Amino acid sequence: MRAAIMRDAKIVVDTVPEPEPLAGEVLVSIHACGICGSDLHALKHGELMVEASREAGVPPASVMDLTKDVYMGHEFCAEILDYGPDTARMHKVGTRVVHPAILFRGYEPHGIGYSNEVPGGFSERMILSELLLVPVPDGLPSEQAALTEPLSVGIHAVARAHIKTGDSAIVVGCGPIGLGVIAGLRLANVEKIVAADFSLLRRTLAERMGATVAVDPSERSAFDVWNGLGQFSPPVIFECVGVAGMLQGIIREAPGNSRVVVVGVCMGEDRFKPMVAVVKELDVSFSFGHSVEEFAQTLHHMAEGKIDAAPLITGRCGLDGVAAAFEDLAQPNLHAKILVEPGRQGATIDAKE
Amino acid sequence: MRAAIMRDAKIVVDTVPEPEPLAGEVLVSIHACGICGSDLHALKHGELMVEASREAGVPPASVMDLTKDVYMGHEFCAEILDYGPDTARMHKVGTRVVHPAILFRGYEPHGIGYSNEVPGGFSERMILSELLLVPVPDGLPSEQAALTEPLSVGIHAVARAHIKTGDSAIVVGCGPIGLGVIAGLRLANVEKIVAADFSLLRRTLAERMGATVAVDPSERSAFDVWNGLGQFSPPVIFECVGVAGMLQGIIREAPGNSRVVVVGVCMGEDRFKPMVAVVKELDVSFSFGHSVEEFAQTLHHMAEGKIDAAPLITGRCGLDGVAAAFEDLAQPNLHAKILVEPGRQGATIDAKE
Repeated sequence: MRAAIMRDAKIVVDTVPEPEPLAGEVLVSIHACGICGSDLHALKHGELMVEASREAGVPPASVMDLTKDVYMGHEFCAEILDYGPDTARMHKVGTRVVHPAILFRGYEPHGIGYSNEVPGGFSERMILSELLLVPVPDGLPSEQAALTEPLSVGIHAVARAHIKTGDSAIVVGCGPIGLGVIAGLRLANVEKIVAADFSLLRRTLAERMGATVAVDPSERSAFDVWNGLGQFSPPVIFECVGVAGMLQGIIREAPGNSRVVVVGVCMGEDRFKPMVAVVKELDVSFSFGHSVEEFAQTLHHMAEGKIDAAPLITGRCGLDGVAAAFEDLAQPNLHAKILVEPGRQGATIDAKE
Repeated sequence: MRAAIMRDAKIVVDTVPEPEPLAGEVLVSIHACGICGSDLHALKHGELMVEASREAGVPPASVMDLTKDVYMGHEFCAEILDYGPDTARMHKVGTRVVHPAILFRGYEPHGIGYSNEVPGGFSERMILSELLLVPVPDGLPSEQAALTEPLSVGIHAVARAHIKTGDSAIVVGCGPIGLGVIAGLRLANVEKIVAADFSLLRRTLAERMGATVAVDPSERSAFDVWNGLGQFSPPVIFECVGVAGMLQGIIREAPGNSRVVVVGVCMGEDRFKPMVAVVKELDVSFSFGHSVEEFAQTLHHMAEGKIDAAPLITGRCGLDGVAAAFEDLAQPNLHAKILVEPGRQGATIDAKE
C-alpha cells in the first residue's frame, strides 16, 4: 500500500508492506487523518523528541528510530475492512471508527503516529486494537471525527485544571489544541475566556469556539485584557504553544495564586525563575494526551453538536500533498488543521470539501 | 542600639537608631532569632534576590536597597517592652511573643528581615504589629519558639500538597525547611517518608523528626529507596534545596503522576525539560511562606510536644558572632540552625545552652 512516511527528516511517499492484523486486531482503511503540531516538531526536531521521550520513560517500543522509516499520523477516522484472529467482531465491516493513538499488541503498547513498525494515519490502511475502537455516530462526517484526538487533548487539559464555579481562563496559543481547550472550557461552563494568538485566522477561530475575546499579543497583553474583565479569582492559564520561553513569560505575567496548565509540548530545554513562581505560589500542572473515556466523550460532544469543530478544518490533501501541507502548517496564518485523505488524488491542498 | 546588619555584602555590627513604635505597633527586645538559608542567599546573591522579588511583584517597600544598610533576621522570639500609640495593650509588658515576618505600618506591609527601614531579629530591639503578636505558651523555651517561622514554612508546604490517605513522600534537602516539611508530614499522618541530604547531621535530624529513612544521594537515590517501600500511589516530592538543577533532577526521576512541591527558593534562572514533565503529567506547586493561622498552629504544636524542634538548634551566638555563623552555616555538616541571641556576649558560636 502507499503511505507518506518520514525518512531522513523528510516526508516521502512510498510503497510499504501491507499491514496484517494479529490477534485482537482490526484492519481499517483511513478516511481522514489530521496533521498535528507534534508531527511538525518530529520532522524538524526529531532528535529532541526521541531524547525527551526516553528521559520521560516512554516504553522503548514507542520511541521511534530516526534512522529508519517512521510512520506518522495519529488523528484519524477510519473504516473497518477486516478482523484478525481472536476478535469478537463487535462492529460490522464498513463501520466508521476512531481510536486512540496506541495499539496494544500482545501486552506491549505501541504508540501510533511515530512508529517504525505500525502504520499511522498517513497511509491507505492501518491496524487498530478491537477493544479500543469507538464507532462514529451516523451524521458526523469522518473529517470532523478525525478531530477527536486533538480536541480530547484540550478536554483533558481542562479536566486537569479542576475548574470551579466562577473560574475564568487565559488560553495562550490558539492552534488546534488551544481551540480544543476553549471548547473544553465552554463545556465546563467557564464564561470568561481570553485567548491569545498572533494569527488572525486562529483568533477568529478562538472566538468562534467560544472565547470571550481573542487578542494579538503583539498589540495587547492577554493578562491586561483579563484584568479588565474584573474577575475576583485568579485565572486558569493554559500554555498551548510549546516553545521555549512561553512558560517563563506566563510565570512573569500571572497573577498570584494562578493555576497554570501546560499542554504545549516544548521538547527542548526551557528556562524560568523558580523564585517568581514561589512568591506567587503558582500551581503548574503538566497535561498529556487524554483518557479513553475523554476520547469517546469528545466524539459524542461533536456528534451532539456541543462542539462544532468544522471551522477548524482549513485544508485537505492526499498522500502526495502531505509534504507541502507540513510546509503550509509552519505558517500559522494559512491553516488551522489540514486533513490528509489517503483516497484523495493529486498533490494540492484544497480549502473546500 | 546594636544590630548585625548587611552592608556592602558583609555582615557588620554597628550602632543603629533606636526604633520607636508608631500607631498600632509594639517595641520588643529579641530573645533569639534564627539564621535562615535565605539570609545566606541574600548575602551572597543579593542582586538576584532583589531582581526576582521585583519580577515577582513584591511591594516596592519590601524590596531591599543593597546600596544601603539592610536589617536582617526574620525568625525571632521576643519580649514586649512597650506599646506605641493606638494600641489595645492586649498582652502584658514582659510577655514573650512570636510574630510573622511582616509589619503593617499604616496600610503598607513592610517585610521584616530584608529591610532598609525596620530592624530585624539580629538587633537588640525591634518593632512589631500588635495585631500579629502570638504569645508564646509558658514552658516552651524562647529558642524553640524562634523556630516557629521556618517550621511553619514546612507545615504550609505540606498543606499545599493536599495530602490524602495513603500518600507517601520524598523530601529532597533536610535543612530547617526540609525538617519542617517532615514534621508537617508526620502531623498529616504520612507514614512513609524518604528524606535525602548529603549531610550526616541533617540525615540524623531528618530521622529524628520522623523520616522513615534518610539517604545520602551520593550513595543511593531517594527514588530507588522509595520504590523499595512498595507504595501504590505516586509520591509527593518536596524540593527543599533551592539551587538550580534540583527541579530538573526531580522531574527526571519522579514517577508518573507525582505531585511536586517546590519550597526551596532558587533565585537564579533554572532549566528543565517541559516534555518530560508533560509525559509524566506532573503537578508542580510552588509554596511560599505560611498563613498567620499556620504560624500560630505551628507554635502550639511545639508547645504541646507534637513537634520536638529542640534538636534542630545546633549553635548559638551573640551579635558579634553573626558573621562567623553565616560562614559556618555554609558548611551543611556543621550546623542545622544557629540562633542569634542579641543579649549573648562574645563572638564565639556555642553548641550548648
